[in-house]
Amino acid sequence: MKLSNDVFLGCECPYDDAKIAMFSAPFDSTTSFRPGARFAGKVIRADSFGIETYSPYLDKDICDLSVADCGELELSFGNAERALDMIESTVSKILNDGKKPLMIGGEHLVTLGAVRAMLKTYPDLCIIHFDAHADLRDDYLGEKLSHASVMRRCFDILGDGRIFQFGIRSGEREEFDFAKKHTIMRKFDFCEFGTHLNALKGKPVYFSLDLDVLDPSVFPGTGTPEPGGVSFKELLECVHQLQDINIVGCDVCELSPPYDPSGISTAAACKIIRELIMIF
Amino acid sequence: MKLSNDVFLGCECPYDDAKIAMFSAPFDSTTSFRPGARFAGKVIRADSFGIETYSPYLDKDICDLSVADCGELELSFGNAERALDMIESTVSKILNDGKKPLMIGGEHLVTLGAVRAMLKTYPDLCIIHFDAHADLRDDYLGEKLSHASVMRRCFDILGDGRIFQFGIRSGEREEFDFAKKHTIMRKFDFCEFGTHLNALKGKPVYFSLDLDVLDPSVFPGTGTPEPGGVSFKELLECVHQLQDINIVGCDVCELSPPYDPSGISTAAACKIIRELIMIF
Amino acid sequence: MKLSNDVFLGCECPYDDAKIAMFSAPFDSTTSFRPGARFAGKVIRADSFGIETYSPYLDKDICDLSVADCGELELSFGNAERALDMIESTVSKILNDGKKPLMIGGEHLVTLGAVRAMLKTYPDLCIIHFDAHADLRDDYLGEKLSHASVMRRCFDILGDGRIFQFGIRSGEREEFDFAKKHTIMRKFDFCEFGTHLNALKGKPVYFSLDLDVLDPSVFPGTGTPEPGGVSFKELLECVHQLQDINIVGCDVCELSPPYDPSGISTAAACKIIRELIMIF
Amino acid sequence: MKLSNDVFLGCECPYDDAKIAMFSAPFDSTTSFRPGARFAGKVIRADSFGIETYSPYLDKDICDLSVADCGELELSFGNAERALDMIESTVSKILNDGKKPLMIGGEHLVTLGAVRAMLKTYPDLCIIHFDAHADLRDDYLGEKLSHASVMRRCFDILGDGRIFQFGIRSGEREEFDFAKKHTIMRKFDFCEFGTHLNALKGKPVYFSLDLDVLDPSVFPGTGTPEPGGVSFKELLECVHQLQDINIVGCDVCELSPPYDPSGISTAAACKIIRELIMIF
Amino acid sequence: MKLSNDVFLGCECPYDDAKIAMFSAPFDSTTSFRPGARFAGKVIRADSFGIETYSPYLDKDICDLSVADCGELELSFGNAERALDMIESTVSKILNDGKKPLMIGGEHLVTLGAVRAMLKTYPDLCIIHFDAHADLRDDYLGEKLSHASVMRRCFDILGDGRIFQFGIRSGEREEFDFAKKHTIMRKFDFCEFGTHLNALKGKPVYFSLDLDVLDPSVFPGTGTPEPGGVSFKELLECVHQLQDINIVGCDVCELSPPYDPSGISTAAACKIIRELIMIF
Amino acid sequence: MKLSNDVFLGCECPYDDAKIAMFSAPFDSTTSFRPGARFAGKVIRADSFGIETYSPYLDKDICDLSVADCGELELSFGNAERALDMIESTVSKILNDGKKPLMIGGEHLVTLGAVRAMLKTYPDLCIIHFDAHADLRDDYLGEKLSHASVMRRCFDILGDGRIFQFGIRSGEREEFDFAKKHTIMRKFDFCEFGTHLNALKGKPVYFSLDLDVLDPSVFPGTGTPEPGGVSFKELLECVHQLQDINIVGCDVCELSPPYDPSGISTAAACKIIRELIMIF
Repeated sequence: MKLSNDVFLGCECPYDDAKIAMFSAPFDSTTSFRPGARFAGKVIRADSFGIETYSPYLDKDICDLSVADCGELELSFGNAERALDMIESTVSKILNDGKKPLMIGGEHLVTLGAVRAMLKTYPDLCIIHFDAHADLRDDYLGEKLSHASVMRRCFDILGDGRIFQFGIRSGEREEFDFAKKHTIMRKFDFCEFGTHLNALKGKPVYFSLDLDVLDPSVFPGTGTPEPGGVSFKELLECVHQLQDINIVGCDVCELSPPYDPSGISTAAACKIIRELIMIF
Repeated sequence: MKLSNDVFLGCECPYDDAKIAMFSAPFDSTTSFRPGARFAGKVIRADSFGIETYSPYLDKDICDLSVADCGELELSFGNAERALDMIESTVSKILNDGKKPLMIGGEHLVTLGAVRAMLKTYPDLCIIHFDAHADLRDDYLGEKLSHASVMRRCFDILGDGRIFQFGIRSGEREEFDFAKKHTIMRKFDFCEFGTHLNALKGKPVYFSLDLDVLDPSVFPGTGTPEPGGVSFKELLECVHQLQDINIVGCDVCELSPPYDPSGISTAAACKIIRELIMIF
Repeated sequence: MKLSNDVFLGCECPYDDAKIAMFSAPFDSTTSFRPGARFAGKVIRADSFGIETYSPYLDKDICDLSVADCGELELSFGNAERALDMIESTVSKILNDGKKPLMIGGEHLVTLGAVRAMLKTYPDLCIIHFDAHADLRDDYLGEKLSHASVMRRCFDILGDGRIFQFGIRSGEREEFDFAKKHTIMRKFDFCEFGTHLNALKGKPVYFSLDLDVLDPSVFPGTGTPEPGGVSFKELLECVHQLQDINIVGCDVCELSPPYDPSGISTAAACKIIRELIMIF
Repeated sequence: MKLSNDVFLGCECPYDDAKIAMFSAPFDSTTSFRPGARFAGKVIRADSFGIETYSPYLDKDICDLSVADCGELELSFGNAERALDMIESTVSKILNDGKKPLMIGGEHLVTLGAVRAMLKTYPDLCIIHFDAHADLRDDYLGEKLSHASVMRRCFDILGDGRIFQFGIRSGEREEFDFAKKHTIMRKFDFCEFGTHLNALKGKPVYFSLDLDVLDPSVFPGTGTPEPGGVSFKELLECVHQLQDINIVGCDVCELSPPYDPSGISTAAACKIIRELIMIF
Repeated sequence: MKLSNDVFLGCECPYDDAKIAMFSAPFDSTTSFRPGARFAGKVIRADSFGIETYSPYLDKDICDLSVADCGELELSFGNAERALDMIESTVSKILNDGKKPLMIGGEHLVTLGAVRAMLKTYPDLCIIHFDAHADLRDDYLGEKLSHASVMRRCFDILGDGRIFQFGIRSGEREEFDFAKKHTIMRKFDFCEFGTHLNALKGKPVYFSLDLDVLDPSVFPGTGTPEPGGVSFKELLECVHQLQDINIVGCDVCELSPPYDPSGISTAAACKIIRELIMIF
Repeated sequence: MKLSNDVFLGCECPYDDAKIAMFSAPFDSTTSFRPGARFAGKVIRADSFGIETYSPYLDKDICDLSVADCGELELSFGNAERALDMIESTVSKILNDGKKPLMIGGEHLVTLGAVRAMLKTYPDLCIIHFDAHADLRDDYLGEKLSHASVMRRCFDILGDGRIFQFGIRSGEREEFDFAKKHTIMRKFDFCEFGTHLNALKGKPVYFSLDLDVLDPSVFPGTGTPEPGGVSFKELLECVHQLQDINIVGCDVCELSPPYDPSGISTAAACKIIRELIMIF
């Protein structure tokens, strides 16, 4: 009997032998507009069958790498703190086992759980953050733990000058004011990306990719589509540039399959994850 | 200029003059399977335009009644306790103003906020609960406040023999065991509904309608469709029988518009709400 | 080369040889809620491929009958009177050529064009009208020509006691009052259908089927779904009973494909049209 | 780390310990109208999370049974014979290992592969076949191996009087004529089902469930929806009656997720599979 | 009780205090291909919640401006002339009250009603027209009042050289010939937009934005998608350039929500409307 | 009676008088990921009504050309060889009748049938192949006849240096290695397209357009969307450049309507087909 199991595209390495450990965090309870990011992990696994394991861009094949797809965390809904704890302990275990974590969201708040764990291992951690939204609110309708506050919470534990934001094109005036003082932010696009990478050379970097940085034409399937984003080719080029940096962990967030009727957002997520694995 | 505002079908009575005050509670953060019930209020208002204000069943017209549609609560996501507090205070105000509350969910947990308020005004409150699911779990993945636990939490404050459940066709074994001891439960259908109503005559009754009691063919647009439910005509007949009872408040929950591509679930919700207003 | 052309399920008889002439009238400009019935003809032709030409209910095969599918009228939008004129002249031609017309709507207003033509040939025409809605308004927001007024306009030219309505479950109070005086109306269902047929024996009857008489569970794809309708089997049984009557023309209206994502409404329409052809 | 893997609802028994072995056969290459049944297995596994492991109908819990979900066969498309070979060898292995096979289609042709294997173990095998379509064509546009011919091909190897068909409401005249001579067919519904079961007592029976036997209102998500089918409760009752029979293998076919936008068809499939496991 | 009402993103200024008065005109009766633009107003209001009131492009916040969202006109369907009259009188009132009108279509024909009113106040009115389609037909299947003729009807009352068209990539040969003589037309893109603006300085300009000028990848949700359009960033840049011009009124037309399953077209409409308010 | 028949946009020339003969080949049985291309022909015909017969790019009108739309082949599913035979004989007939064939797929395998016929008439045939995928696999899960192998099979009969591939961005490593030796391949985009055309001047060229060469933002409705493709304008420009070449036949493949909910992919296909007809 030749029966397939559901893992991401060729990521069939046993956990113990893996260099990269992938898992999904199906949480979207603080999503304020359109929920559904909880389903991203399952759909990404299923549809990864539609792309190839080989990258003609990098001339690498995912089958030649050592990646374990560990599956999906079982998170309860409606309690953000508990979900973050589970994510933090998962990432800590992966790090302690000497592997690099790759987390598939879920909404963007899940990044906070991962960053908490990363910081324990890498005290001088920096973050590269691709997003349409600044995510720098101090709270959202009174909630401190919210997808719209995730980078603000990361700032709380990282401090000034360690969050590098690109593609940001939405937020409250206060968030942009905050960014001027406390983060490095490139509005609207990825210009000068290479220049900023120079400043990060040699440092441990966590890469947090909110896929809504892509233009909604390329990536319609997300909770809060924000027109005027970057193209797939622009994103792909930046991801390839990350090869020069010490990426110690990463996440890919905010695919919301219910808003992706043609599956093109999932295909974009799958292809970016494949390329990320190859530069990582 | 003749411009329309968005209220439910003819419910344009000013709040101060109204006998019934309707509002929506857009909360679905504890939904475990498919979220989206947060959108029900807006969609029900918009699509109520598709049915008539007149009921040929009851020979009444909603325009002849005094119903205020107060609009939508602004609830944050990801914090169930805070959302319940806001619902409780809203219902309390409506009751204190001498009106009857009609709440549109949202997921079923919102009922708990309303019942907390109702109980202060009506200490001998009973509940009629129509649902596919027992909702009697003590917790769901560790969470006490969950859509799957809402009737258990109501039981905690009401006690034995005051919750009357109908149409229940899904739950854990423990929930059905619990029901045998603490609630009055009619499994699978509405048989003997009239008999049970006799026991409730003269008592203040809160009617909580989880629309997934309907068969998914009639009502596909819900988070956890459970095949084998009742028909629309069966539900309509039971709602009409409620005329003999002292309904002091009610809610209509669990319409999830993202799973209702043809709008028939919303139409069913609108029509049931219209009939409820007329017997209420 | 074996190439197929797009006609309804086996209705490939040349027009000159046909006993029944089918055509579609893609008009929905007066639809007040959700338009889309204009697409019904094309979709019914395409999806008729999914059912068989043989009816196990009637033990007849559509291939053994003489039916021409003449295709789709080219109607402009936004001018109801002009569209009705084109329909009237089309039906007149079919009648003058000694054939029976079968029209696929479009919204229900198209019936008026056909009835105007029928009446010239059959001065004692009666109408059997299946519908969820009474369609007896004198006007709709000031418009005399509207899907919500079509039976009232038919009444204007037919007069008292010649319109037999079944399954009606929605309308304004005034419409139901009007029906008591001027039409024969069975509310909610098809009970007593056979009894009413007796009164129609020997008379020329036009059968106008608004498919929303079906319950929205069976037939979601329609402009104004109205819960609480009849089942497919109930409709099928009534259609079969029409064999005893002299049906001189008929129409099947209000399939709106944009609201039929799974195609079940189209399948229901196709199957009913097949059976209608067989009893007609 | 608590990570879930994708198996059907609680079917986590290791293969070696299992009494029932479930697998999916993602094949739909001969589907003539609307393909998509290939996706059924994955979607059924994912959405089975939405129902409970406990059946209040049978008072059994799937967690108390020994069921292995073996996953999905890797079948190529466009070559029916090869796919059938792989299915046959899979079922043979399951039987040889002393387990009962439960196959999730795929289109209905997959049944032929299973029946070929079953017949080797059970030479006196009978088939109970629930379906909207007779599936008795000798060929379909020249193809002998087709979803529309599957029961004819089973007949070829079983012979007269061993196929019991229920709910059939569509086919060519020739198929119904064939059935009169060679199979036991109940048209349109499940009446007399119990009576027919008596004739099967003591015999090894393969149960093949084409889910389109259900009415399209209950089960829209299928390739060729055929209005006028049975209700979910009617199907459920028949499945429960199978407890009295020696079911030695079964399949559940023709869920086509692309035509199930609200997920109710998948929910129906999941619930029927749960109940089947319990009576099996 | 904190309850929200349905207005466009922060446009809560009372009408009497407003400088800009927004309203929606839900009309699409002359749409020849795919109707649905009637729903744009409601959906734009609901989904405007997904973007921010602050524009990082212009460093302005909609909450600091004085905009009243007056809601939706109640227009009947099927009678274009009557709908245009209601629109004309609404715009006249807004102008007479000293405010600037911003109309949300509906199909493009609604522009004619607004332009009729604008011309009474501004006899030297010019029009900037962004569109994929020339809209210069003299009639459409005999109808003079049609979405495909709206700029021709505007020409009838404005005369030569006062309509400036950009992005036009579809039409009959006669329309392009007409444009050469009577309008200023830039085919395919927005090149030379700034140059043309110089000619309009000091003049009162009505800006009519048919959103299908955007490429269908960015804006799929429209009645007649025409590939090969401009990007969102190109449109945004042009809208920002309008700051130098005396825009005295504007409209945003042809969003058709039924063809926008992922909501990205609505998001694009919302963001453009926000920016328009800020430059207006 | 003015009734329309279903042909592609103005292609109403009788076959005998036509210079170009268009037909559709509804086959998708070997599609490995998401089937549905079988429906492309019908949907392209129906939606071609949404674009104009006139091209402002080329200043030509399709009504001035001689194109016959012959309709749809009736192919069985599940037998690739037989389908290819039918396509081959159809194309042979068209060529023998002195016309140029334009085939609408269907999945890409249909190209093989056409190329087999073309080669008999044009022994020195070359192919221009636009695609996201190399389609050069020797087999797919053991099948030689597969959409993923179609150019490999064409190579088998054409030999080295006669297949010119553009836009390829997906494949196995082996396919790219094969291309280096045996085909002319431009990866990722259309750069140098003009240069390659020089090499083809004077030769008979078959143009095979797999529409998934377009970026999924422009063309979501396809079986295997591959992000990072070309824009519509880039494709359009290349198609216009084909005017300099002797195109003797062409096909347009892989539109899959079930994955095109907003219809923009179909619109793109229709517009490209219109332009192709004009340069052909």
